[in-house]
Amino acid sequence: MKVLELKDQSPQEITVKIKDYTFEEFVEVVRSFHGFEAVGILIGGFMVDEAYRHLPRGPLFDALCETPKCLPDAIQLLTPCTIGNGWLTVFNIGRYAFTLYDKETGDGVRIFLDPAKLDPFPEIKAWFFKLKPKKEQDLARLLYEAKTAGTSICGIQHVRVPHKLRDKQHQNEFAICPRCKESYPVSDGESCLACSGEEIYEQVPPDISGEQV
Amino acid sequence: MKVLELKDQSPQEITVKIKDYTFEEFVEVVRSFHGFEAVGILIGGFMVDEAYRHLPRGPLFDALCETPKCLPDAIQLLTPCTIGNGWLTVFNIGRYAFTLYDKETGDGVRIFLDPAKLDPFPEIKAWFFKLKPKKEQDLARLLYEAKTAGTSICGIQHVRVPHKLRDKQHQNEFAICPRCKESYPVSDGESCLACSGEEIYEQVPPDISGEQV
Repeated sequence: MKVLELKDQSPQEITVKIKDYTFEEFVEVVRSFHGFEAVGILIGGFMVDEAYRHLPRGPLFDALCETPKCLPDAIQLLTPCTIGNGWLTVFNIGRYAFTLYDKETGDGVRIFLDPAKLDPFPEIKAWFFKLKPKKEQDLARLLYEAKTAGTSICGIQHVRVPHKLRDKQHQNEFAICPRCKESYPVSDGESCLACSGEEIYEQVPPDISGEQV
Repeated sequence: MKVLELKDQSPQEITVKIKDYTFEEFVEVVRSFHGFEAVGILIGGFMVDEAYRHLPRGPLFDALCETPKCLPDAIQLLTPCTIGNGWLTVFNIGRYAFTLYDKETGDGVRIFLDPAKLDPFPEIKAWFFKLKPKKEQDLARLLYEAKTAGTSICGIQHVRVPHKLRDKQHQNEFAICPRCKESYPVSDGESCLACSGEEIYEQVPPDISGEQV
């Protein structure tokens, strides 16, 4: 977990890996998936890389992410866990941290971005604490610092994820909602949650998009 | 929205597109991202494709997905909206549906899987209503039916997403939690939500993963 020595080399010349990608390859992957080279996902990539270094081989892992900002995308890009397959859960308590844990036992590794380790990286610190408006951020400097910092700004804890956060809801029976005529989990009641509660959407005429459906 | 005529052709011979991918290419993309060729994402791919056919060009769209099962991954793979960039929100009301809507106005197109259109596709119907245990599903038949059905099993509505579901929470000030020493949004109070409430994790000794940190 040493900070790279960059005295005699430009950061472009140093090969830094994030799982199976070089840093530069991962920047491209992030750009393609997320829309832009969000530094939060690049740092998140190092965090996922660090988690795997401390996990035993063998068990299947689920992910619990403590923020919806950026970090879930690093997890989705670098682990088998996605929102859609249910192996990634976002439990928003506002900390830049996640845990990869054994599905069976709940035992896992929690990685967090450690504020105490950010002093050597002022641009990351300014980004992380939102000390600068976005337009004043120096993206090139941020990427340089992210690549340089690597996993050195991570903190690690061994934790056990409790049942209440890892037990999945399995809906095994579906029915047609008598109001909207769509399918819904029977366990939700006589009609689907949208029709049982207040109307979610305002229905609008199709000419909003300039066409008839 | 016609069902493909497959009388004289094997489905492998027909080129079916899901946005910029052929069906077969998209199967590979799904396998790589989601871990397996989940039919829910393949059908979701057609649903996203259908949404774009009914959206005007120009505005930036956000996505609201009504289920966490499979469909969010189709949205993340085929639109710029991801969980991590905040342009995709999952609001779980158990319906297999999503809306792509103009960020500014809330006007958008809602696509749902329409149960009334599933009779010609018995394997999709059995999958959708969980009429068969997973191990009895015929994956080849499911993929065949998904490719054949394409967008013909979608329903479409023009809707307006209300402010309460599209207004994003922007946290602009962060502090160090006096207990866990991690960063958290100041608006959450004197300490982070994890430390204000009950402890989320049980801390365990590092030898669980067979190493010292």
